[in-house]
Amino acid sequence: MRCCHICKLPGRVMGIRVLRFSLVVILVLLLVAGALTTLLPTVKEDKMLMLRREIKSQGKSTLDSFTLIMQTYNRTDLLLKLLNHYQAVPNLHKVIVVWNNIGEKTPDELWNSLGPHPIPVIFKQQTANRMRNRLQVFPELETNAVLMVDDDTLISTPDLVFAFSVWQQFPDQIVGFVPRKHVPTSSGIYNYGSFEMQAPGSGNGDQYSMVLIGASFFNSKYLELFQRQPAAVHALIDDTQNCDDIAMNFIIAKHIGKTSGIFVKPVNMDNLEKETNSGYSGMWHRAEHALQRSYCINKLVNIYDSMPLKYSNIMISQFGFPYANYKRKM
Amino acid sequence: MRCCHICKLPGRVMGIRVLRFSLVVILVLLLVAGALTTLLPTVKEDKMLMLRREIKSQGKSTLDSFTLIMQTYNRTDLLLKLLNHYQAVPNLHKVIVVWNNIGEKTPDELWNSLGPHPIPVIFKQQTANRMRNRLQVFPELETNAVLMVDDDTLISTPDLVFAFSVWQQFPDQIVGFVPRKHVPTSSGIYNYGSFEMQAPGSGNGDQYSMVLIGASFFNSKYLELFQRQPAAVHALIDDTQNCDDIAMNFIIAKHIGKTSGIFVKPVNMDNLEKETNSGYSGMWHRAEHALQRSYCINKLVNIYDSMPLKYSNIMISQFGFPYANYKRKM
Repeated sequence: MRCCHICKLPGRVMGIRVLRFSLVVILVLLLVAGALTTLLPTVKEDKMLMLRREIKSQGKSTLDSFTLIMQTYNRTDLLLKLLNHYQAVPNLHKVIVVWNNIGEKTPDELWNSLGPHPIPVIFKQQTANRMRNRLQVFPELETNAVLMVDDDTLISTPDLVFAFSVWQQFPDQIVGFVPRKHVPTSSGIYNYGSFEMQAPGSGNGDQYSMVLIGASFFNSKYLELFQRQPAAVHALIDDTQNCDDIAMNFIIAKHIGKTSGIFVKPVNMDNLEKETNSGYSGMWHRAEHALQRSYCINKLVNIYDSMPLKYSNIMISQFGFPYANYKRKM
Repeated sequence: MRCCHICKLPGRVMGIRVLRFSLVVILVLLLVAGALTTLLPTVKEDKMLMLRREIKSQGKSTLDSFTLIMQTYNRTDLLLKLLNHYQAVPNLHKVIVVWNNIGEKTPDELWNSLGPHPIPVIFKQQTANRMRNRLQVFPELETNAVLMVDDDTLISTPDLVFAFSVWQQFPDQIVGFVPRKHVPTSSGIYNYGSFEMQAPGSGNGDQYSMVLIGASFFNSKYLELFQRQPAAVHALIDDTQNCDDIAMNFIIAKHIGKTSGIFVKPVNMDNLEKETNSGYSGMWHRAEHALQRSYCINKLVNIYDSMPLKYSNIMISQFGFPYANYKRKM
């Protein structure tokens, strides 16, 4: 039989049709694959950050070491005394001193003249004396963990070594030595307090809902998280020159959906503010300080339109330190 | 043009071809989907078990309550005293008494005559007096959590309430009140001990690597896990009438790849063995008891061809109970 011209056409037409069909198939396959990847677990931010930050520096893996960030104002004598203590703490990678003494030279010369030092200490001159200067994303920071300490606080080395090991087990929470709480009142207005206030609920004991950052370990990615917060939060901290720590607890609790911090009971932690020659005694002595903190809690609840803080009654101590601290009192 | 017979053929042939092609496409799509599901996170056993076990019973959700399993031998006076205490503990769902008094009637009559009781108590007559009887998969057990207590141990209610809340935060670990450890020796042979032994390593303080099950909360799925262990493990426990708790720590540490337990420091926990009229004073008074436990550790390392136990120095206490237990000693 003579094949008509039209018989060849189907060949070519089928060719085009098959091609088109194949293209449709490939597109569908890709769509299905794309849809199924939404079922994959979300790679946690901190895991990704840990991979990115895995830079071996000065012989210490930056996963196993931490950076001390210490903000200082008008207490250089205390600062230098504390630096002599902290510079020798195991697993310390670097110190970043946030120099809030505007217009005054940083003590680099003095520091260097008293070298060599176990680790690098960087004095960062600031442009304005702001409480939240210490929450910047410092380019010099290489570790996953930050140790943040107020410039009048002396925490013993065993306490720090232990608390860091606890942070490594709970890297998404603030692991620190100073617990505080918020309490709701019948008017719906929140209050800020310490142990003298009564926790809500009828159970035994107390609760805390915040761990203050001025004596704590936390994940360095939270500095970035802080910077990304609404301008109103930064403004609140600037207006009060207070509450950066309360804000951090709000932010972290909101971010992780559980209690923002874990309290580690310090064995040996002191406040040295009475020992300064400067006569300067710290922000918390201001008359309005405590009231400001309650004010901040309610402002933050407004800004975030929620109360994300969660209570905890877990207190962690180091087993066997001090000796036999687990023995029962008979 | 006259279409040849053969022109119709492509129509049908194309029809078949397209059909065949579509089938191939569908198969490929299914294969791709199947391959992608291997990337999905494995649903953890305990989550599945929790879903399966979510039976509301007696008004208590079995996710939020626990079952007390208490094995008893020759100390019925202590048992009944303890049952009066434990039956009133909040969040208790049911008690299972493992009756190792072979040939002796269970005290059901006496128990019922002293009702009503807050929760059901089931006396399970055993066929032989075996230490591992308490690690059976009891059909009466409906909760995710087991509270396992020795029949001479009185743990205060606040301790239990707190420890249960801790277990709910760490449901894959044994949360309990009695820490122990293994220590390696230079010969490679392991030893069993408590705080008097020195933990390996040069850090401060002590470590523990086991939490004894006789005063602890743990996930009820671990009973099934125990039953699935090699016969040699069961035989070891039967031979020594000891070490079921050491075995459980091995099994759990191996299963979860981290420390098997978390130690919660008890505020008020007593051993009542001196108060029994039976004169029976418990297995741990046998001369060979401690040596047996070291023996068991080395046998288990042989059986599992590894040492899965991991050290921890985390000690958990309840914040603010007793009052102001977090205040620093000045």
